[in-house]
Amino acid sequence: MDNITAVYPGTFDPITNGHLDIIERASTLFDRVIVTVAVNSSKTPLFTKEERKDMIANVTSGFGNVEVDAFDGLLVDYSQKKKASVIIRGLRAISDFEYEFQMSLTNRKLAPAINTIFLMPNEKYTYLNSSLIRELAKFNADINDFVPAYVLDKLKEKFPA
Amino acid sequence: MDNITAVYPGTFDPITNGHLDIIERASTLFDRVIVTVAVNSSKTPLFTKEERKDMIANVTSGFGNVEVDAFDGLLVDYSQKKKASVIIRGLRAISDFEYEFQMSLTNRKLAPAINTIFLMPNEKYTYLNSSLIRELAKFNADINDFVPAYVLDKLKEKFPA
Amino acid sequence: MDNITAVYPGTFDPITNGHLDIIERASTLFDRVIVTVAVNSSKTPLFTKEERKDMIANVTSGFGNVEVDAFDGLLVDYSQKKKASVIIRGLRAISDFEYEFQMSLTNRKLAPAINTIFLMPNEKYTYLNSSLIRELAKFNADINDFVPAYVLDKLKEKFPA
Amino acid sequence: MDNITAVYPGTFDPITNGHLDIIERASTLFDRVIVTVAVNSSKTPLFTKEERKDMIANVTSGFGNVEVDAFDGLLVDYSQKKKASVIIRGLRAISDFEYEFQMSLTNRKLAPAINTIFLMPNEKYTYLNSSLIRELAKFNADINDFVPAYVLDKLKEKFPA
Amino acid sequence: MDNITAVYPGTFDPITNGHLDIIERASTLFDRVIVTVAVNSSKTPLFTKEERKDMIANVTSGFGNVEVDAFDGLLVDYSQKKKASVIIRGLRAISDFEYEFQMSLTNRKLAPAINTIFLMPNEKYTYLNSSLIRELAKFNADINDFVPAYVLDKLKEKFPA
Amino acid sequence: MDNITAVYPGTFDPITNGHLDIIERASTLFDRVIVTVAVNSSKTPLFTKEERKDMIANVTSGFGNVEVDAFDGLLVDYSQKKKASVIIRGLRAISDFEYEFQMSLTNRKLAPAINTIFLMPNEKYTYLNSSLIRELAKFNADINDFVPAYVLDKLKEKFPA
Repeated sequence: MDNITAVYPGTFDPITNGHLDIIERASTLFDRVIVTVAVNSSKTPLFTKEERKDMIANVTSGFGNVEVDAFDGLLVDYSQKKKASVIIRGLRAISDFEYEFQMSLTNRKLAPAINTIFLMPNEKYTYLNSSLIRELAKFNADINDFVPAYVLDKLKEKFPA
Repeated sequence: MDNITAVYPGTFDPITNGHLDIIERASTLFDRVIVTVAVNSSKTPLFTKEERKDMIANVTSGFGNVEVDAFDGLLVDYSQKKKASVIIRGLRAISDFEYEFQMSLTNRKLAPAINTIFLMPNEKYTYLNSSLIRELAKFNADINDFVPAYVLDKLKEKFPA
Repeated sequence: MDNITAVYPGTFDPITNGHLDIIERASTLFDRVIVTVAVNSSKTPLFTKEERKDMIANVTSGFGNVEVDAFDGLLVDYSQKKKASVIIRGLRAISDFEYEFQMSLTNRKLAPAINTIFLMPNEKYTYLNSSLIRELAKFNADINDFVPAYVLDKLKEKFPA
Repeated sequence: MDNITAVYPGTFDPITNGHLDIIERASTLFDRVIVTVAVNSSKTPLFTKEERKDMIANVTSGFGNVEVDAFDGLLVDYSQKKKASVIIRGLRAISDFEYEFQMSLTNRKLAPAINTIFLMPNEKYTYLNSSLIRELAKFNADINDFVPAYVLDKLKEKFPA
Repeated sequence: MDNITAVYPGTFDPITNGHLDIIERASTLFDRVIVTVAVNSSKTPLFTKEERKDMIANVTSGFGNVEVDAFDGLLVDYSQKKKASVIIRGLRAISDFEYEFQMSLTNRKLAPAINTIFLMPNEKYTYLNSSLIRELAKFNADINDFVPAYVLDKLKEKFPA
Repeated sequence: MDNITAVYPGTFDPITNGHLDIIERASTLFDRVIVTVAVNSSKTPLFTKEERKDMIANVTSGFGNVEVDAFDGLLVDYSQKKKASVIIRGLRAISDFEYEFQMSLTNRKLAPAINTIFLMPNEKYTYLNSSLIRELAKFNADINDFVPAYVLDKLKEKFPA
């Protein structure tokens, strides 16, 4: 196969062990994996774009073929600019499924040459998502098992006990 | 990336345009794609193993990196024997989803180094499956849009008008 | 609107209060409603085709525009023969939903002029189906609320206490 | 059948090809179809009520029995005022399903004489909705296949390139 | 069994007949049931915390082992403080299911000794929820069957005709 | 609370770690838990009724308040005979959900005083079921993590390598 670039888009507010699990799998499948923060002007994230990129960069530094970036606008436009032919999505639950189907089919209409592939995280992370993490961190719950140590520190800075 | 071999297992009784769509996508992602007929002793298929392999070989002959095979026993054992690190599955509907999750997680437990990836067929094929095709063919319905011409001929041999 | 004929196909083994609820609603919407027993050679029903038609005829005799029939083969062929432009289906639960989608989209491909419409039974009947009725009748459970009196008698003949 | 009036309520912000597909089917089933814009004070739409009615009127002008209107308050109150005995809903996906069930059962409790019927759009439109259209239009994506030409023009006025 | 305390958390804005049905069932299963209002600072409820507690107290006064309370923070912290070993949740619909799974698994990670148990309300209440009640009350719909009389009065005070 | 007896019915062909997890939770909630093998004449199990009871008895011998039994006929009749007021079910996946709803609502109609409660197994066991175990055992896959040691031995006797 020629070199394949894959993008893994997300809000990553913050990156969790579930995301990291997907990134690790993707890094064994494709030559280059770009983890890219979707900047959505209508939601106020807990972490700034720069903070989110910093956390991703820190926890993925061990993978030689993983890069970190951010984008706004349409994912397919971004992917084409990056010469990516693959979009990676994690699939955890039924409620993800229909939304992901919709986005996948829409993106395919807009850019037929780009394929969306779905990876399943370890079942330990099936019910994990960033908004749950933020909620738990707010109340100083023990979330050691859910996020990397570096992210844990950043969450503690946002929510001092 | 080093050469990656992917297996695409299924009953393929018979292969449909939906399967073919998945195979085409997979052939652009991985170096070698083995489409492999799952031989399940407990069900009586319409087509024999050899007939199913013949139809797959015929309709995938245009893809340089696609091979045809069959297996019985455990998919992960077969995949390891073939040195495949990827299992490909099409994901069409919610009812697929839970079964596929179960198989994917089980296979991961049995062979952690093999990743299951999910591809979505064109939405035209979302609700297409082989048992529907067999049912329609039995009643001589017009299934031109659902299967390749070669498969259509074989179905007509099984169900003469 | 010109006269519209609707078919309401099913196995009706036996007809339940849920089916009857759908028939009553359909009879207020369309000029002519044909309740038609799908004869499926691969399953052995509890009641014969004639017994099923008899029960339907008995419990729908109060509706002036409802007829009873049976068919084998493809539903769309049958509908066209009957000059029906509407297929009626009850929609009770998520598990119905995907199967019904598949059949509806397939039938549309085969006969674009026929529309499938879905009606929802009273929520009392949401979880009611004929196989549950047969199971309960077998063990002489009290199923007064689930089937019309005439059907109850026929079930008692099949399963004497 | 006596004359039947059906209402097809929605936000229509804006009307899509999926809506239009449902309207076309409904217009062959019922004598009079009122497409009615639900005015919901708690959400700020992209298009005003008048703009939405204008777009609907424009793209449905070819159907002799389709009217355009708007309402606030309870749908069943509106339907009764319009002497409608049918509420039409499109059913696209599982996530629609439960919400639609809830509304249908609630409306039936409030007005037992009104039946909700569900129609399925062409599978091309299964994953299409107005919020996706607005998002795509905002980024100047090519949405020719998703909305009528008249709506496309209006979207371009809202989001000049 | 030693004395078991169960907590039944919710927003209860307002309590409905569906909630009451769950409370009645729970009161026969556990020695002490604490119905507890979750105070979520990010949403503005229709009723204040005190009004919600007052309504719950009023409609559950007939059950000898039911208490009323409120909490903010993490449910598991609250449960431990109350020496409760059971969390009760009503399960009505698929859309509840995944959210409840997530919360149940998360709570179990945080406090392994506490079990979440799910009870199913009467099917009459399957599609009932507080936000629907508020919407219907706002438009003066007849909601006699959905809430206790005391709650109906309080809703009328909020939404005078 | 007065003494509460709960029944936990199932096919248990064979009992898995997922079942055992539910039994352990149930044994902390109720005074007496009867694990009862449902004998269904229409399916041929891998293990006889006596073998299944023996395996359950062996792996639950550590719980002082757990008994083993078997039944045919209606579960509610059996429960009443045993003076059980609770039926316990494990809830693992969406596909369980609708079937369990149906059974729960039907059982409630037949015996209103009996409540069905749902427990969630550890997420490690979410996708585990007995038919998967039998399939894996047949091919001598490593299923150490899925069943207790005693059950593993019995499976090996059925499927010698």
